[in-house]
Amino acid sequence: PSEAVRRQAADRLAGLATPAGALGRLGEAAVWLAAVQGHCPPSPPSDVRVVVFAGDHGVTAHGVSAYPPEITGLMVQQFLSGGAGVAVLARLHGAALRVLDLGVDVDAGTFPAEVSAYKVRRGSGAIHIEDALTGDETLRALAAGAAVAAEEVAAGADLLIAGDMGIGNTTPSAALIAATLGIGADEVTGRGSGIDVDALAHKQDVVDRALERAGARVADPVDRLTALGSADLAAQVGFLAEAARLGVPVVLDGVISVACALVAEDYAPGSSAWFAAGHRSPEPAQSLALEKLGLEPLLDLGMRLGEGSGAVAAIPVLRSAAAALAHVSLLADVLGAQDA
Amino acid sequence: PSEAVRRQAADRLAGLATPAGALGRLGEAAVWLAAVQGHCPPSPPSDVRVVVFAGDHGVTAHGVSAYPPEITGLMVQQFLSGGAGVAVLARLHGAALRVLDLGVDVDAGTFPAEVSAYKVRRGSGAIHIEDALTGDETLRALAAGAAVAAEEVAAGADLLIAGDMGIGNTTPSAALIAATLGIGADEVTGRGSGIDVDALAHKQDVVDRALERAGARVADPVDRLTALGSADLAAQVGFLAEAARLGVPVVLDGVISVACALVAEDYAPGSSAWFAAGHRSPEPAQSLALEKLGLEPLLDLGMRLGEGSGAVAAIPVLRSAAAALAHVSLLADVLGAQDA
Repeated sequence: PSEAVRRQAADRLAGLATPAGALGRLGEAAVWLAAVQGHCPPSPPSDVRVVVFAGDHGVTAHGVSAYPPEITGLMVQQFLSGGAGVAVLARLHGAALRVLDLGVDVDAGTFPAEVSAYKVRRGSGAIHIEDALTGDETLRALAAGAAVAAEEVAAGADLLIAGDMGIGNTTPSAALIAATLGIGADEVTGRGSGIDVDALAHKQDVVDRALERAGARVADPVDRLTALGSADLAAQVGFLAEAARLGVPVVLDGVISVACALVAEDYAPGSSAWFAAGHRSPEPAQSLALEKLGLEPLLDLGMRLGEGSGAVAAIPVLRSAAAALAHVSLLADVLGAQDA
Repeated sequence: PSEAVRRQAADRLAGLATPAGALGRLGEAAVWLAAVQGHCPPSPPSDVRVVVFAGDHGVTAHGVSAYPPEITGLMVQQFLSGGAGVAVLARLHGAALRVLDLGVDVDAGTFPAEVSAYKVRRGSGAIHIEDALTGDETLRALAAGAAVAAEEVAAGADLLIAGDMGIGNTTPSAALIAATLGIGADEVTGRGSGIDVDALAHKQDVVDRALERAGARVADPVDRLTALGSADLAAQVGFLAEAARLGVPVVLDGVISVACALVAEDYAPGSSAWFAAGHRSPEPAQSLALEKLGLEPLLDLGMRLGEGSGAVAAIPVLRSAAAALAHVSLLADVLGAQDA
C-alpha cells in the first residue's frame, strides 16, 4: 500500500464537511482502500471476484463435525447451481463467483473440468494422526492458489475474496492458528457448524494431538501447512499471498480465511497490509488471529456459514466507505460557497 | 407484523441448506422483514426513501455543541446539492432522499418551497429554560411527519428511514430518552459531534435542568415533545408512528432517530415492531433506548454523523438478509437432487 496516498486520504477525511471522526470505521476503511488502490479518493470496488476453495479433511472421519464429509461435494454443486449462501450474496452485490475443487473426496468427473483443474488430491490427511499433505502437494496447492489469484487479477479484479467449502475445515484452521500464534488447542477450538459439548472436547483433543504430532516443524509456514493444513487451505494461502504481491486488496471471511491470512503473512511477510476483515466469526480462533493481524472486522452479525459469505456481505460497507470519502463535500468548499 | 408469516419465515430459515443458525443476525433480520412485509420469503427492499427532518435548537446558544447553529442551514443546502454524507450513501444504495425544514432558524425563502412546506417555526426553545414548542406546534409537527410518511408510502416506499439535521439535536434527544426511561442526565449525555470534557459536563447540566423543569409533564409523550423536543424531532415521531400504522418497515439511525422511536412507541404503542436498528451510535443514550425497544443494531461502525447515514449504510445488510432467505437452497431440495 502507498503510505503517501494513505496520508493524502487521511487528510481528505479530516477535511470533509463532517465532524472529526464522524464516519467512524467507514472513514478508516476508506483510507485503507485508498492506500491499497494507490489513489485518493478511492473507488468503490466494482470488479469483485470470489474464489471458493473446496476440499475434504481426514479428521471428519474422527467425529469433529456436525456433518458428514459427503456434504462437501453436494455443496460444490450448490455453488455451481447458485443456491449456496455465498452465491446468493455474490449475485446481489455484483461479485463474480468461482469454485475450485482442490481436495474434495469425490471421483474424477464428478465436477466440470474447470472446477477440478487445480485438484491436488482426494481429501487431506487426518492431521492428528498423519500429515495433511506431502511436501510436494503443499507446494502444488500454494502454486495453484497463486495461479488462480493471478488469473483473476489479469481478468480485472479490483477486490478479491477467498471462500472455503469443506466439512471439518475449522479443525485444521484452528490448528494452524494455534501453531502460528503459539497457543493451545483450548484457546482456538470452537463449535464450527454446530457440535455439542462432548464433540467440542473431542475436537479440542484432535487439535491438541495434531499440534503435538507436528512439533517444531510448524515453525516454517510451508511445513505447517503440510502437517496441519489441507490442499484447499494451502491453496487459499497461495491465493492470498499472490493477491497481496500483485497489489490487489482482499476482504477476509471467517476462521478459515483468517487462518490462511495468518499463514500467508508468515509465508510472504507484509501480505496482511492488503487485507481487510469482512466480519467477526463466533469461532474463538478467528478473533485471536485478527488481533494478531491488527484487523478489526467490518461486520459482526454472528454469521458462521463460511464460503466467503461474511466477506461478501461486507462489500457494500467498503463501497460506502469509498463513496463517502470520494463524494462527501469538503468543508473548504462548503465555507467557500457560503462566502461566495 | 404478521405472526403467521414470521413463523413461516422462521421455518424456512431452519430448512435452508446451511447449518442451523449459520446466517446469524442476517437470518433474524430476514425473518423480521418477512413479518413486516407480510410475505415469505421477503423481498430485498427496493424503494427505500429517506426523509431528513431539519431544525435548530435553542440550547445551541448555551454551549452544548461543538458547532454553531448556522451549520444547520448550510447542511440543508448540502442535502440538496448531494454532498452530505447521507446523500452520498443514498445514491450509492439506490435510496431516494428528501430534506424538510421543520424548524431551521433561517429567513423565509432561504430554501426551495418544497423544503419549507411543513415548517413549524424558526428554531425551537432552549429546553433547560423554556418549552421547546407550544402544544399546538407539537401537534402540527406530529401531523407534518405523519403526512410526509403517508406521502412516501403512497408513492411506493417499501422501506423508510428518518434522518436528522440540526446542530445541538443530541441534547433534546438525550433529554427525551432520559424522560422516557426515567433515568438521569448522567446516563444519557454524550459528546455529540465532538465536545470536550468541560462542555460535556455543561451539556449534562442542561439536560438535567431541562428534565427538572419539565417535571411530571413528561409522562405524556406529546407533552414530553412540547417540553423537551423540537419541531424536527416531533415531526420524526409523527413520521415513525405513521409508517408503523401504515405497515411499512423503518430502519432507525442514531441517537436522534432512536429517541424519536422511543417516543413513537409511547405515542402509538406497538409501533416499534415495525422498526429495525441500523447501527450502533457512540452516544450512550442510543444503546439504552435500543435495549428498551429490544432492538440490536445491524452495524457497529462507530459512525456518529447523523442525517440517517448509519441507517442508509445498513440497507445492504437487510437486502442480504432478504436475498439469503429467498434464494439459498432448501435442504430438502439439495437432498432430493441427490436422491434423484
